[in-house]
Amino acid sequence: MSDIINDLKWRYATKKFDVSKKIDASNFELIKESLRLVPSSYGLQPLKYIIVESKDIREKLVAASYGQSQVKDASHLIVICAANQVGDQEVNQHIENIAITRDHKVDQIKGYGDFMKSTIAQMTDQQKKTWNSKQAYIALGQLLHTCASMRIDATPMEGFDPIAYSQILQISDDYSPILLCPIGYRDQDDETQHLKKVRKSQEHIFEKK
Amino acid sequence: MSDIINDLKWRYATKKFDVSKKIDASNFELIKESLRLVPSSYGLQPLKYIIVESKDIREKLVAASYGQSQVKDASHLIVICAANQVGDQEVNQHIENIAITRDHKVDQIKGYGDFMKSTIAQMTDQQKKTWNSKQAYIALGQLLHTCASMRIDATPMEGFDPIAYSQILQISDDYSPILLCPIGYRDQDDETQHLKKVRKSQEHIFEKK
Repeated sequence: MSDIINDLKWRYATKKFDVSKKIDASNFELIKESLRLVPSSYGLQPLKYIIVESKDIREKLVAASYGQSQVKDASHLIVICAANQVGDQEVNQHIENIAITRDHKVDQIKGYGDFMKSTIAQMTDQQKKTWNSKQAYIALGQLLHTCASMRIDATPMEGFDPIAYSQILQISDDYSPILLCPIGYRDQDDETQHLKKVRKSQEHIFEKK
Repeated sequence: MSDIINDLKWRYATKKFDVSKKIDASNFELIKESLRLVPSSYGLQPLKYIIVESKDIREKLVAASYGQSQVKDASHLIVICAANQVGDQEVNQHIENIAITRDHKVDQIKGYGDFMKSTIAQMTDQQKKTWNSKQAYIALGQLLHTCASMRIDATPMEGFDPIAYSQILQISDDYSPILLCPIGYRDQDDETQHLKKVRKSQEHIFEKK
């Protein structure tokens, strides 16, 4: 059990990756499957993950990432994107997926779909976009935990130019890049790995009722 | 390794908890420590976790949760709250915590603090609030993963009345409740545990570059 805490203490926002070390295919498949299983509001999964392996493209992305070299040096770069919109179409697709997966008739779960649609219809376009982008943070939380459990290093990043990313990666107009997560293996020269983890005490963050 | 995928497949949004089963103290401490270790933007940790054990209070919260009984039936209810504001004061506190933890002088890391302050100063009040609330979703992602690895059930919830929650739990004006997560053990009569997990295929959510 306390392996979990050891794993979470082991992880840190890696500053320097070992460029010679690649995540092997089976481990990377496990990470992808973890991302696929990420929970989301109503199960709508409004996310897309762009896996950038091309070194040429990643060279170009460094400038769009305020020079943060992890973007090119890590084994893989994961760009978590969220849909700009959500509405009846996405709910219908989800209802269809539920019906197929669970061998229901679409009519049996139409009421559930209508409930989702009416809730979503009350949101402004901006609220829908924000709601979708929040789901990217659930994915990040799960991804960092999965990586830590596998002793794979990761660097969560919010700081980058989303417009430049959209252009360089030719992201469809339906999605926006929300978070970056280069993953791979820390360089042994990365001094930040030896720094003590900084966290508030439990007294600061927990309240009991 | 593939334990991770088994754990993530095992979890589901629990509809009915076994009211007789409590998470034992040492396991709950582990969950708290996982929450304390949750990463956040700039490491600012703009979150507070309210742990509601009182059955009286939880009875009152059911009505503020659209009747979802997990709120009272689970072993523990975790309410993830985010700070409404973030600015110089929070950065100063963080810088001080870094200095104490890593045995630096505050002056040595002042530049890092100034960088954070100037970035945050560019946000509107609403953007700061949204940014903080996104960190709650990282916590949720990590929490659900930790619980799944411990075979503890959980129900992530966005649907509740935040104003009623703030009143009933007497949450300080500085924080807003963002997400609920009742945790405990599934009731063996909860039929939803037998339903197949619904997820998009890898082809739908991954793109390679």
